[in-house]
Amino acid sequence: MKISGVPYRTIWPVESGAVRVIDQSRLPFELVTLDLATLEDAARAIKTMVVRGAPLIGATAAYGLALALRADASDRRIEEAARILLATRPTAVNLAWALARVRSVIAHLEPGRRFQAAFREAGKICDADVEQCRSIGVHGLEIIRRLAKPSRRRVNILTHCNAGWLACVDWGTALAPIYMAHDAGIPVHVWVDETRPRNQGASLTAYELGAHGVPHTVIVDNLGGLLMQRGEVDCVIVGSDRTTACGDVCNKVGTYLKALAAKDNDVPFYAALPVSTIDWSLDSGRDIEIEERSAAEVTSVIGRTAAGEVASVRVVPEASAALNLAFDVTPARLVTGIITERGVCAAGREGLLDLYPEQRRSA
Amino acid sequence: MKISGVPYRTIWPVESGAVRVIDQSRLPFELVTLDLATLEDAARAIKTMVVRGAPLIGATAAYGLALALRADASDRRIEEAARILLATRPTAVNLAWALARVRSVIAHLEPGRRFQAAFREAGKICDADVEQCRSIGVHGLEIIRRLAKPSRRRVNILTHCNAGWLACVDWGTALAPIYMAHDAGIPVHVWVDETRPRNQGASLTAYELGAHGVPHTVIVDNLGGLLMQRGEVDCVIVGSDRTTACGDVCNKVGTYLKALAAKDNDVPFYAALPVSTIDWSLDSGRDIEIEERSAAEVTSVIGRTAAGEVASVRVVPEASAALNLAFDVTPARLVTGIITERGVCAAGREGLLDLYPEQRRSA
Repeated sequence: MKISGVPYRTIWPVESGAVRVIDQSRLPFELVTLDLATLEDAARAIKTMVVRGAPLIGATAAYGLALALRADASDRRIEEAARILLATRPTAVNLAWALARVRSVIAHLEPGRRFQAAFREAGKICDADVEQCRSIGVHGLEIIRRLAKPSRRRVNILTHCNAGWLACVDWGTALAPIYMAHDAGIPVHVWVDETRPRNQGASLTAYELGAHGVPHTVIVDNLGGLLMQRGEVDCVIVGSDRTTACGDVCNKVGTYLKALAAKDNDVPFYAALPVSTIDWSLDSGRDIEIEERSAAEVTSVIGRTAAGEVASVRVVPEASAALNLAFDVTPARLVTGIITERGVCAAGREGLLDLYPEQRRSA
Repeated sequence: MKISGVPYRTIWPVESGAVRVIDQSRLPFELVTLDLATLEDAARAIKTMVVRGAPLIGATAAYGLALALRADASDRRIEEAARILLATRPTAVNLAWALARVRSVIAHLEPGRRFQAAFREAGKICDADVEQCRSIGVHGLEIIRRLAKPSRRRVNILTHCNAGWLACVDWGTALAPIYMAHDAGIPVHVWVDETRPRNQGASLTAYELGAHGVPHTVIVDNLGGLLMQRGEVDCVIVGSDRTTACGDVCNKVGTYLKALAAKDNDVPFYAALPVSTIDWSLDSGRDIEIEERSAAEVTSVIGRTAAGEVASVRVVPEASAALNLAFDVTPARLVTGIITERGVCAAGREGLLDLYPEQRRSA
């Protein structure tokens, strides 16, 4: 999408032979790019969250593996590079998937041809992600178009966390339909949940919407219920980290509360996600293990001081404990529909299998 | 309640003739008291939120009016002092009520007797508030006692914002039952919503619970739903800024989301409040006007830096708008019961009128 009118992706190859990324740890206050020229550069970028978001982590790892092979493309080097990259974010499913995809392409090539083939495959991974997100956008756009028709006023969409292009290579998942609607001239306005504890809404979602020119307003996570009571939300669109075969949606903590409020106020609630996040082996969201992260993310907040420095301030008494569980599960009964690259379906086994009939055989 | 074993109120007269308050703008990081010796001191304390919370604002205003009369207790001076105090927080109902109460006591006294009578009346206002909160605690304690019986494990109570003794003179409203249960040896543990945007939970509720020795854990406002799904919340107790004659509860924004989650998970949800916050003239909570406050409370967070300084950091891009509505309304259908100084009743007209039969005549 665009930043001040210039089209961007989150990762792209440059003439020097390196790949360039947006340093997301500096957002929303500074737009800085960083060139990754070596395996070590790529590993560091993932580990320090210069890049984040499952699809972008996968793409960066794929390029990282390619870069590792520029001087030495031996089997031993492939093994070593994959090990280093995997260790950067051990729970990121896309990372392992992307590495396996690149390795399967180069395994049987002679070493002299491996670097270029790996680099090309990393590019294909990026292009495929863009195409997948674009398809999610096309299907989600129809939902927004229908909402826009009766009222002719702006369509107010609430989103939680960041499921935008900064988490992917381009477009995003939850935000893809919004960008498409905006670009198509449909007047959209986004309520952006700040999304404590890590504030990905206030920092990343607000930044990328603003940079592309999409009208939006940042709100605390507490406000969405009141806005729905007042009729100021036409629909909710969120992303998903993992969705079960029965349509239970695991996403950033707090999503469930917004889904409850949507249900209570007859506001349609959608999850937008690529097929890779559907866990066909799981029925109930109750079986999803929820990641517990550092309490420091709750007890402290990072922002910019009046002097312009990025600083962390403590907001909880030193003697108080804090608990930081990163996700919650929204039961399928609260989800109006699931938007994937293949279309929109009801949140449930039948709906998902209608979109992915190939899963019936294995079910 | 206690701070490190020492019993405190939020406001009390000292030998010098002044009244002493806890400077709440320095909490949770420093316990500092401040002496109010003049009308100007009291007005400044209210205006700068050295004191906050409706009952405490009322008590401070009452003392402020008394202090104003020490040297000059003329009718003109009374008028002037009341005007200055009313202007400090124009929307605080308790402030006007407390000033009217003191004025009605001194109006017909000769000026020479007014100062002492006003000072005495301010003390009575404080004592009455303490007694009222204590009664709320006694009735709420029975709810916690019943929850403690079957499990014999700790009772987990979730609260939102600060409805503790720091907002009152002592005990608090929502926290009074919790202090009583703790002091009675019932093992309680409190989930403290940080309560964005002003973080009164993370700062004040966590501080006062910790100071009194009540086990508690600070959580982001997004987490309560997951905790209820997991069975880790036995009940919710919140305060209320205004409750309608039909039992709709207006409280700090985000309360409604917690009530929805409580309903969805069969967790009892209580509002604890003194009769003064019941608005008998209003039926539906939809008619309550919601205060819009400065967007800066959303775009910035105040906390303590590593260097020990209290600082404000910006967490939202400069170009992004923010909206800050301070309250929401929880419909009576989501409220299990209302705890007042007279007992516990169902959230509805009949329940409230059973506790306050004198309102039937006027209804």
